[in-house]
Amino acid sequence: MLKYNGQYESHLVISNSAKRTMELETELHLEDMISLADIVYDIDDIGASIASGTFRIDGMVVVPCSMKTVAGIACGYAENLLLRAADVTIKERKKLVLVVRESPLSQIHLKNMLYLAEMGVVITPPLVAYYNKPKSLEEVSKQIACRILDNFGIELNDYKRWGS
Amino acid sequence: MLKYNGQYESHLVISNSAKRTMELETELHLEDMISLADIVYDIDDIGASIASGTFRIDGMVVVPCSMKTVAGIACGYAENLLLRAADVTIKERKKLVLVVRESPLSQIHLKNMLYLAEMGVVITPPLVAYYNKPKSLEEVSKQIACRILDNFGIELNDYKRWGS
Amino acid sequence: MLKYNGQYESHLVISNSAKRTMELETELHLEDMISLADIVYDIDDIGASIASGTFRIDGMVVVPCSMKTVAGIACGYAENLLLRAADVTIKERKKLVLVVRESPLSQIHLKNMLYLAEMGVVITPPLVAYYNKPKSLEEVSKQIACRILDNFGIELNDYKRWGS
Amino acid sequence: MLKYNGQYESHLVISNSAKRTMELETELHLEDMISLADIVYDIDDIGASIASGTFRIDGMVVVPCSMKTVAGIACGYAENLLLRAADVTIKERKKLVLVVRESPLSQIHLKNMLYLAEMGVVITPPLVAYYNKPKSLEEVSKQIACRILDNFGIELNDYKRWGS
Amino acid sequence: MLKYNGQYESHLVISNSAKRTMELETELHLEDMISLADIVYDIDDIGASIASGTFRIDGMVVVPCSMKTVAGIACGYAENLLLRAADVTIKERKKLVLVVRESPLSQIHLKNMLYLAEMGVVITPPLVAYYNKPKSLEEVSKQIACRILDNFGIELNDYKRWGS
Amino acid sequence: MLKYNGQYESHLVISNSAKRTMELETELHLEDMISLADIVYDIDDIGASIASGTFRIDGMVVVPCSMKTVAGIACGYAENLLLRAADVTIKERKKLVLVVRESPLSQIHLKNMLYLAEMGVVITPPLVAYYNKPKSLEEVSKQIACRILDNFGIELNDYKRWGS
Amino acid sequence: MLKYNGQYESHLVISNSAKRTMELETELHLEDMISLADIVYDIDDIGASIASGTFRIDGMVVVPCSMKTVAGIACGYAENLLLRAADVTIKERKKLVLVVRESPLSQIHLKNMLYLAEMGVVITPPLVAYYNKPKSLEEVSKQIACRILDNFGIELNDYKRWGS
Amino acid sequence: MLKYNGQYESHLVISNSAKRTMELETELHLEDMISLADIVYDIDDIGASIASGTFRIDGMVVVPCSMKTVAGIACGYAENLLLRAADVTIKERKKLVLVVRESPLSQIHLKNMLYLAEMGVVITPPLVAYYNKPKSLEEVSKQIACRILDNFGIELNDYKRWGS
Amino acid sequence: MLKYNGQYESHLVISNSAKRTMELETELHLEDMISLADIVYDIDDIGASIASGTFRIDGMVVVPCSMKTVAGIACGYAENLLLRAADVTIKERKKLVLVVRESPLSQIHLKNMLYLAEMGVVITPPLVAYYNKPKSLEEVSKQIACRILDNFGIELNDYKRWGS
Amino acid sequence: MLKYNGQYESHLVISNSAKRTMELETELHLEDMISLADIVYDIDDIGASIASGTFRIDGMVVVPCSMKTVAGIACGYAENLLLRAADVTIKERKKLVLVVRESPLSQIHLKNMLYLAEMGVVITPPLVAYYNKPKSLEEVSKQIACRILDNFGIELNDYKRWGS
Amino acid sequence: MLKYNGQYESHLVISNSAKRTMELETELHLEDMISLADIVYDIDDIGASIASGTFRIDGMVVVPCSMKTVAGIACGYAENLLLRAADVTIKERKKLVLVVRESPLSQIHLKNMLYLAEMGVVITPPLVAYYNKPKSLEEVSKQIACRILDNFGIELNDYKRWGS
Amino acid sequence: MLKYNGQYESHLVISNSAKRTMELETELHLEDMISLADIVYDIDDIGASIASGTFRIDGMVVVPCSMKTVAGIACGYAENLLLRAADVTIKERKKLVLVVRESPLSQIHLKNMLYLAEMGVVITPPLVAYYNKPKSLEEVSKQIACRILDNFGIELNDYKRWGS
Repeated sequence: MLKYNGQYESHLVISNSAKRTMELETELHLEDMISLADIVYDIDDIGASIASGTFRIDGMVVVPCSMKTVAGIACGYAENLLLRAADVTIKERKKLVLVVRESPLSQIHLKNMLYLAEMGVVITPPLVAYYNKPKSLEEVSKQIACRILDNFGIELNDYKRWGS
Repeated sequence: MLKYNGQYESHLVISNSAKRTMELETELHLEDMISLADIVYDIDDIGASIASGTFRIDGMVVVPCSMKTVAGIACGYAENLLLRAADVTIKERKKLVLVVRESPLSQIHLKNMLYLAEMGVVITPPLVAYYNKPKSLEEVSKQIACRILDNFGIELNDYKRWGS
Repeated sequence: MLKYNGQYESHLVISNSAKRTMELETELHLEDMISLADIVYDIDDIGASIASGTFRIDGMVVVPCSMKTVAGIACGYAENLLLRAADVTIKERKKLVLVVRESPLSQIHLKNMLYLAEMGVVITPPLVAYYNKPKSLEEVSKQIACRILDNFGIELNDYKRWGS
Repeated sequence: MLKYNGQYESHLVISNSAKRTMELETELHLEDMISLADIVYDIDDIGASIASGTFRIDGMVVVPCSMKTVAGIACGYAENLLLRAADVTIKERKKLVLVVRESPLSQIHLKNMLYLAEMGVVITPPLVAYYNKPKSLEEVSKQIACRILDNFGIELNDYKRWGS
Repeated sequence: MLKYNGQYESHLVISNSAKRTMELETELHLEDMISLADIVYDIDDIGASIASGTFRIDGMVVVPCSMKTVAGIACGYAENLLLRAADVTIKERKKLVLVVRESPLSQIHLKNMLYLAEMGVVITPPLVAYYNKPKSLEEVSKQIACRILDNFGIELNDYKRWGS
Repeated sequence: MLKYNGQYESHLVISNSAKRTMELETELHLEDMISLADIVYDIDDIGASIASGTFRIDGMVVVPCSMKTVAGIACGYAENLLLRAADVTIKERKKLVLVVRESPLSQIHLKNMLYLAEMGVVITPPLVAYYNKPKSLEEVSKQIACRILDNFGIELNDYKRWGS
Repeated sequence: MLKYNGQYESHLVISNSAKRTMELETELHLEDMISLADIVYDIDDIGASIASGTFRIDGMVVVPCSMKTVAGIACGYAENLLLRAADVTIKERKKLVLVVRESPLSQIHLKNMLYLAEMGVVITPPLVAYYNKPKSLEEVSKQIACRILDNFGIELNDYKRWGS
Repeated sequence: MLKYNGQYESHLVISNSAKRTMELETELHLEDMISLADIVYDIDDIGASIASGTFRIDGMVVVPCSMKTVAGIACGYAENLLLRAADVTIKERKKLVLVVRESPLSQIHLKNMLYLAEMGVVITPPLVAYYNKPKSLEEVSKQIACRILDNFGIELNDYKRWGS
Repeated sequence: MLKYNGQYESHLVISNSAKRTMELETELHLEDMISLADIVYDIDDIGASIASGTFRIDGMVVVPCSMKTVAGIACGYAENLLLRAADVTIKERKKLVLVVRESPLSQIHLKNMLYLAEMGVVITPPLVAYYNKPKSLEEVSKQIACRILDNFGIELNDYKRWGS
Repeated sequence: MLKYNGQYESHLVISNSAKRTMELETELHLEDMISLADIVYDIDDIGASIASGTFRIDGMVVVPCSMKTVAGIACGYAENLLLRAADVTIKERKKLVLVVRESPLSQIHLKNMLYLAEMGVVITPPLVAYYNKPKSLEEVSKQIACRILDNFGIELNDYKRWGS
Repeated sequence: MLKYNGQYESHLVISNSAKRTMELETELHLEDMISLADIVYDIDDIGASIASGTFRIDGMVVVPCSMKTVAGIACGYAENLLLRAADVTIKERKKLVLVVRESPLSQIHLKNMLYLAEMGVVITPPLVAYYNKPKSLEEVSKQIACRILDNFGIELNDYKRWGS
Repeated sequence: MLKYNGQYESHLVISNSAKRTMELETELHLEDMISLADIVYDIDDIGASIASGTFRIDGMVVVPCSMKTVAGIACGYAENLLLRAADVTIKERKKLVLVVRESPLSQIHLKNMLYLAEMGVVITPPLVAYYNKPKSLEEVSKQIACRILDNFGIELNDYKRWGS
């Protein structure tokens, strides 16, 4: 997400589970997603640039983030590029945002999330902001996206702040 | 929620914050809510029956559950009827379900929730179940309600289980 | 309870819950209680002398002590005079005696009591001393009162010690 | 306590300390106690059926439960039948109720009880329920017995619930 | 294992290691095993019904359960269907039984098992019940199977209880 | 404290204890204080903008900060606007500065402060900087104020740095 | 087990429970067992040579090892010769092997075993080594015995290693 | 040890191990020891006065104190009068002095002693005070005795203080 | 500080840092300070009487107490006479008062102070008591001195207690 | 590495990441590496002899050891032959040497390494031994290799010890 | 390292061990090193500006950093200027980078480093970056220097980033 | 202590405190001590061979070992040669024996010793072995020396083992 010429550069890694989830929950096609990113990596490309601490980034977002991925990051078991990139983000003390999606939350899930939160990782469930009285699920999704980007100081026009 | 004659008996406590939230986020009036419950208690009525371990209940739900209430339960600081009832539910080892609504989750929030989860308290954020491909926010709310009641073995017709 | 001229000076704070408990469980009137103390404070009088570490005391007793008060002391959440006075008693390393009354004891209650016991706070449930073969509940109450005062080296004539 | 034909079957183990306590504190004779139980075991009969996890039980009550017995259970030092039966009750995840009788409670006592409470063991001091305004110590004892049995869903006619 | 019409429905997931173990240790063929189950899932079918908390189950057994699987469950690293199903069983607070097979047990193994036992997971090594004086290894295996099913209240005729 | 047009915007919440302290310890009137702030909130206005994570701030200072407030923040018991705003400041990972004023510091106080310091909260007692050889208490107060503001990169002319 | 002239010297302590277990589970007589050992001690002979750290040993095996004995060793409650000898083995940093026999394993059992494993004590349940495809229970027992002795570098002809 | 008329009253409990140790290590006879005490109790007399918290004492010394006794006190496993008296001394917050005699000290021993030291129990190994340049073992023993009594403010003429 | 003839005897150790601080912050000369004490020791005189537990003291004050000294005491790294004397004060369970002077307090500082407070060490920052409305810094210093001495029951005329 | 006939037998497992690293960082070919080992296993051959505790080894070295492998060993998630062999090495209490290569080291990395070090695992980063004033990187590599082998008592001629 | 006029200002403290290491491991003279820094302090100059939190810095690097210095920082035992400056860097929440040089890493070393990493201190061993295929040790050293400076956003021309 | 030609080579470091203790407690002169060792190092010679992990040793003994030295080793604060050598002994996993001499043992002392014992360090107070019925202090000292050397398998003729 490093800004260059007033722009952000986005690097994308899609796990196999993410692909399946996209099919099950959305009308999107994989190509649509890929076309939105500046650079796309294979999940097994452990030697990619984002796997190195010397590569410059502003931070990393995992959205949606399964409890398996939370566990992998918390344990340090960086067996694919997504987990390795998160591991590097933590060791280089950059911002890592996990949009966690699980309910109920077991003791294992909470322990892993607490451990990461203690390191400064942002743990943020994608909740409906009812105080905005959203009209549609699309509006809900947009607000969630705004909330995530706000972590990096990126503010979209659509973002409704409390009291504004 | 104790069943009698095939029915459930519901006991309701509404905090002041809950009243304000209801105004801000819904079109409901307080009377509508009150009329749905069998018995309604004042938040300060510390001596009410549900404040005693000898009173029989199946369990307790706090929905929505603020992080302040999570903290009050976790600390055991039972200064109003809602907190005291939760404290009793835990000491009598009945089911307690907290529909937590906060994002991001701080280290303090996660520690409190983890502590409660370790005791068997159900910590369940009200997430949108996208795999059901809900058509409206009303449908989302209904699914969340079904998910909560499922904890007590109460199944509504509208509940969509995965794979069903 | 500082001794002066061979006498003890007693300072009394009564919480609202205590007032209600007195009504529910005893035949006493509030005035009776108040007339027994040397000095009586309002529960919200956070600026009273006993809220300061410079004020000289021998110690403090909370009787009966609810689990909410145990929690408030353990957390340090000194939002009324009773909790502040207990907080001060601990920081000034004076004797604090909590006559705890709850059954069963949940994990939360036990954790709070353990934490306070580790600091030297006396945690003492008001149990019936069956080995004394008490004849009445009044005798039971008297023995409990003797047991509490024994913590401060105050011995009443009625106190039955084991083996005596 | 397994129900058969609408009845409960009771299995009794009496420690040597219990025998002495019975003499000191009650007018009961050992035979009276024994005649009330369905099956009675010797405290040293480590090979008795209740020492095996394959034997079916609903749960176990230790009343009164000394701090020594709490310690023995918490450490897993199952050197007699009572301690072994409690150890088995825990490993088979059945209900274990300890009617603890000690005051004040030291850090050691509280730590042991907390550890057991974390495992689901019910820690319940036999307190006087003053809100019932009991007339005699016999009434007090009866209420305590009711409170204990309530843990197993056994309700006696004499049981006074709060607010009932 | 949900009962319907007095029957149990069994859902089976076989890991690749399990297949290899079956070959090495038994005379069974994979088809024999598969034919015994009501429903069989592929180990990589992360989207199967048993991967969802909304699917109704009585519980789950992993037999034999390797230390790798114990670790995967304890960490929450649910990267295949077996681990995900166990993760769901824990978050939905259903019964999970792990028939662990390792000797000696390292500090790592014991820590993982302890962590799971603290959550209510049943950790049960398949030991020979010598007190039954078994005549053959087949009898040993049958007793172990009975012991496992006893966790779910399923009692086979062959089960020898202690003292029976 | 967000800068706009080279200025800082200040938002003020005054607790009831703060009001009393102001009377006891200073010659100030409440109005003087209020007139210095850009925006003033009622302590019970839980729905104010600063109670939301979507509201933009640079950070928050509590001065003076009682041990009760430290406890409320550490427990997450956000029952008034001041505590809620601090809770939000922590969850949004903004700078929180607590000017703690208590002596001696009990184990409870230190545990709460340590817990907050581990999260990045600045714990700063308002000590006299003797190395500046201050001439008056007013000078002392000014130096303390400078020290607080220095946390936000705001430097007043009066600030005396070591060695400067 | 100290080797002298290419031989091992064995010292035997039999607890009362062990005697009973021998009767219940085997066809052995106590004399058979005793005749196999070089030196036999009474369980209460706390002053025997093996109770002293100055006595030279290679290590100690407890087989079978009850959870009571695991607990006694872990707590350091060395009230008989077996427990004292184990305590000495640990303090002299010699090898201690516990052939633990319990199922399921409770949280208490696992905590005690973990604590001992952290000190280097070998915790080894006597499992059937199915990969050897044993023909009889006798063969199973022999393999277990070999596995235990292997800890001390003693290799019997009958020992089947994996892959050999 | 309570002073009356300028005198101390001593209460003595001798364990069976202590009797054996006395024989092995000294020329003393049991009667000599007994004649020195004011009151002597049987080790199994659990109901003796010193087993009750209502009995008044200044403190308790265990000399020499085995690691088994340290363990029994630390666990709270008060199965004889000595352990019960120590348990009571701790719960009544009186002075408890343990003259521990073991070398080397294992992790188990140190953990138990640390736990007791955290509660205020005095852990004091009977070391030779070489700086006194003692002439004989008798002089060594006398200095150790003085050191123990110094804990209770009892000073013998023979006590050599450093620098005196 | 032992009283003899109604007087206190003071023993003084001055660290090198203390000497430098005295120069930087006060108008005092080292001789002034030394003349006020009964006995003065060199900081490196590890064999001085106050380095021995047999020497009788009432307690010890470190004023001002740097975070380095707090650390040295907490770690037990008693490499000079001041640290050794503090170490002895703790092991002999006498009163130790640390007038700590640091701001802000880091996690390391707070952890060390918490650890010492858990042992009964008094941690007391020298704060301005504004409620006394002091007129000058000299008055502030006098009040701080009074507050310190109050720990030992020494009361000066100048001491202003709250409410007095 | 078991010695036979004065020789060492080496068993080699190469992970896929190792193969890639070899390509990226060295001029070596896989065959060169393989030809140096006595026996080579496939990374997925979970049933190989080194996966069994009954197979005799002197120890195991992982060089270089990624943080992912450290995590896998620490969690016990033995999903390939390398991780399983390390798991076995730990449970059989043989020497395990991890030549860790990561910088900076995150909290997750350090926690995993600390956990393993507590179990006796050797954690050794391949640092340049500047005190040897090495002339080339080849010399650096040779010294690192010597340092690793020194753990097993294997000393090469090239090894430069400090001061030799 | 504060930038002024596009430049960095460097402040240097050299410990005695550092001087000796420089002699042993390099061809450098102390004067060379000193001439590179803007300001140089004596290691014992505890009162230097960098010992005060009011002095403005960007951060601090310790290179190479011995395990003794890691320990001193972690304990807070700030007995020289280097340790005090690090202590201040932590309390003022500035960046602290420790280039740690030790192998193997003991449990003590790892615990200290973990504790510091939890506070945000960067722990970075000076490893050879083999993926850069360095030609000489000088190139290795340069890369290590670049890696250190990268923590402060200072980028040299020589820095080879992964994938660049 | 490495054996060469059937002999042991001894390396000696004497701290300044040791020198003073030798004067105070013995009739020995420093030269006597030095003449007994093979090699003697200055306490400040941090670069000596025994400060390097590459130097071969069998182990290290500190006798007598002050609590300050225990603390220095436990913290890793290796500021002199003795502490560094101990630090190296631990990191190279060689035997370290500390003959600790302090009484009573404070919580700080016990915590440090426990931490070291957990790592395998031998903590051994020099107690009088009364069961040997020693005739003189010289005999006591000899037995203590034998006990220390026994840790390294060095047996003197004078050593009296229990029961021998």
